[in-house]
Amino acid sequence: MSGFDLSPRAARRALSAVSDTVDVADAVVAERYARVVWNSLAEPGDGVAGRVIAELGATAALRLLMDGDLTSTSVTSERELTDGRKRWMPRLSAAPIAHALEIASVRRVRLLVPGDVEWPAQVDDLGENAPLALWARGDASLPARAGASVAIVGARAATSYGEHVAMELSADLAASGVPIVSGAAYGIDGAAHRAALAVGGATIALLAGGVDRPYPAGHSSLIDRIATAGAVVSEVPCGASPTKWRFLARNRLIAAVSAATVVVEAGWRSGSLNTAGHAAALGRSIGAVPGPVTSGASAGCHRLLREFGAQCITSAADVRELLGFVEHPAAPPPDGRPPTDERMRVRDALSGRSWRDVDDLAARSGMSPSDVEMHLGLLLIEGRVEREGRRWRHLAER
Amino acid sequence: MSGFDLSPRAARRALSAVSDTVDVADAVVAERYARVVWNSLAEPGDGVAGRVIAELGATAALRLLMDGDLTSTSVTSERELTDGRKRWMPRLSAAPIAHALEIASVRRVRLLVPGDVEWPAQVDDLGENAPLALWARGDASLPARAGASVAIVGARAATSYGEHVAMELSADLAASGVPIVSGAAYGIDGAAHRAALAVGGATIALLAGGVDRPYPAGHSSLIDRIATAGAVVSEVPCGASPTKWRFLARNRLIAAVSAATVVVEAGWRSGSLNTAGHAAALGRSIGAVPGPVTSGASAGCHRLLREFGAQCITSAADVRELLGFVEHPAAPPPDGRPPTDERMRVRDALSGRSWRDVDDLAARSGMSPSDVEMHLGLLLIEGRVEREGRRWRHLAER
Repeated sequence: MSGFDLSPRAARRALSAVSDTVDVADAVVAERYARVVWNSLAEPGDGVAGRVIAELGATAALRLLMDGDLTSTSVTSERELTDGRKRWMPRLSAAPIAHALEIASVRRVRLLVPGDVEWPAQVDDLGENAPLALWARGDASLPARAGASVAIVGARAATSYGEHVAMELSADLAASGVPIVSGAAYGIDGAAHRAALAVGGATIALLAGGVDRPYPAGHSSLIDRIATAGAVVSEVPCGASPTKWRFLARNRLIAAVSAATVVVEAGWRSGSLNTAGHAAALGRSIGAVPGPVTSGASAGCHRLLREFGAQCITSAADVRELLGFVEHPAAPPPDGRPPTDERMRVRDALSGRSWRDVDDLAARSGMSPSDVEMHLGLLLIEGRVEREGRRWRHLAER
Repeated sequence: MSGFDLSPRAARRALSAVSDTVDVADAVVAERYARVVWNSLAEPGDGVAGRVIAELGATAALRLLMDGDLTSTSVTSERELTDGRKRWMPRLSAAPIAHALEIASVRRVRLLVPGDVEWPAQVDDLGENAPLALWARGDASLPARAGASVAIVGARAATSYGEHVAMELSADLAASGVPIVSGAAYGIDGAAHRAALAVGGATIALLAGGVDRPYPAGHSSLIDRIATAGAVVSEVPCGASPTKWRFLARNRLIAAVSAATVVVEAGWRSGSLNTAGHAAALGRSIGAVPGPVTSGASAGCHRLLREFGAQCITSAADVRELLGFVEHPAAPPPDGRPPTDERMRVRDALSGRSWRDVDDLAARSGMSPSDVEMHLGLLLIEGRVEREGRRWRHLAER
């Protein structure tokens, strides 16, 4: 059942192809390796594993687990640990972990763990549910630099309207240096990635399964292109399949990596709402692109606007505002009083055919003759009225 | 300049065709008549006139104005009154007022003033800018009964999408007893009125000009039908033309009469935004129907959602919620933690082809064998899995 060599030497050997181990202290490399093991034992977001590792360190926690000595601590109850051991022990096997590292090595996948320069610290906002490790194809440092990134996500069953808007938003934002985060799915996700690639921008795909297993299969070449120009990232090891559970868990990562999440099209129960909900829970900004209320593909977006306080997104400028880049000063709302544009009242009172004198215009406009005269003078200077003695009329608009 | 007989006897004679004067006290009838005169002197929303009348009463204020003795009071400054006199005096002429009453009498237009049973008290929320009087064709009591009404307004240059949505909302709400208020314009307004009429519901058109002057001319027969089945109302006397100023002033009345204002389609600078702004300023609920972000006809609605805190309206049920009729309990948002549906994890771990034992399923799902067994048992009862000894597989969905 044990069979794990957790020595620094074994750790260096196991990790040399996926992580910088030269000039790194023994304890650090060992801890990194222990995280890789935990990453295989626990499903994404296992809060008990997260707490045990945060308190004891991955190496110590793993040794205690293997020795059967892992007991309740200040942050975990005995009950939680009993249940945890039952979840984790069936997976405590050296072969699959070695196999996952073997694939990672061959596919040039990088391992990221907390403390690495390349670790995207924003995901630690997930607390005990933060990923234990991340696996990256492509530019492994991109997620850490994606602090002002935006997730553009949405329905697989997108309409051409939704895909059009996703591409417009993504191309504009990516061209101006905002990394685009998405889930590589069909529909909105794919449109967002493609547009970012098309303008030479940065884009990150977060997968539900291992980064060596492009999903959906029809997006294999798109995912390869993302890995070449940006980064393809997952929290599950190579070889892991993209289960439904992991899709939902992956959604929280999309929300956590990005500064804001924008949903372009989503059905009433779309998984994108789950992503947006996580973003809101993490204090990230959320936006939703409206669409026709007659379109089921926009029903989830409207739900976000109604129930989740999402910001209404109509343009890339709106997304920049969501990211805090710009401030549109809001127009002052009317205050229940009638308009005060007296010039409008004078122009309303004038005719283009009949000549009218000031008294007539005063009566028609409900203004004093002197005020009417002042506005007539200004309109005359602007060439909008003509006079004949004491009488006035509109000049036709040119 | 004076020429006005403000005696109760003259008032009774002038108003008998437009107001109940039998069994009404002399002072009340005189006050009513004085309001009619003021209604001709002041443009809609003249706050100084509103304050003077509120303080002194319309009759006393008018007498003082005619005698040149109207002086500053606790609520008006000398400067305001000097300006006011200049606005009002050019209109102080008996003939047009008599003419407006003559038209009203012929067209069976009813006069409403504050204190009448039929006066819609909700417009008094406009304070000093409240209308001094209202003129109604059709069911003059309808506005006063329209407390839980909704204004459905929007662009004249509506798209077929906008008109479709306006009709759907209006028909549904009107059929369930909610009066529909609008401005009788082309586009959204007309669609809202028509749908309300089609289902036999109540609808009120608020006009910018006199109720005897249907505007736009192309909606003359529609406005006649509204007058027959509902009410056509204006605050300006018969014969008054619908000036631009009065359109803006009319918008505040639409907002004030209705419990909520819903904008269906509106351009970036549409007058409907003005109506919604007044509604918000009056503490009324406002809603906006989203549309494609690629449609300029929805740009104003999206602006309301972004800048004015309008509620996103996708259905008549959403409007009822806006009116406070129903409460949709908001779905609890995700809390940043991963999903807790263990059944999903067990089903993810099962195959439809390969038989898998509990230990295998435990390792695949990251769950304890005992938890896996519990869920397998439930799935078996539901006929979703089959077993062969200690091994299990999915049954195909039927």
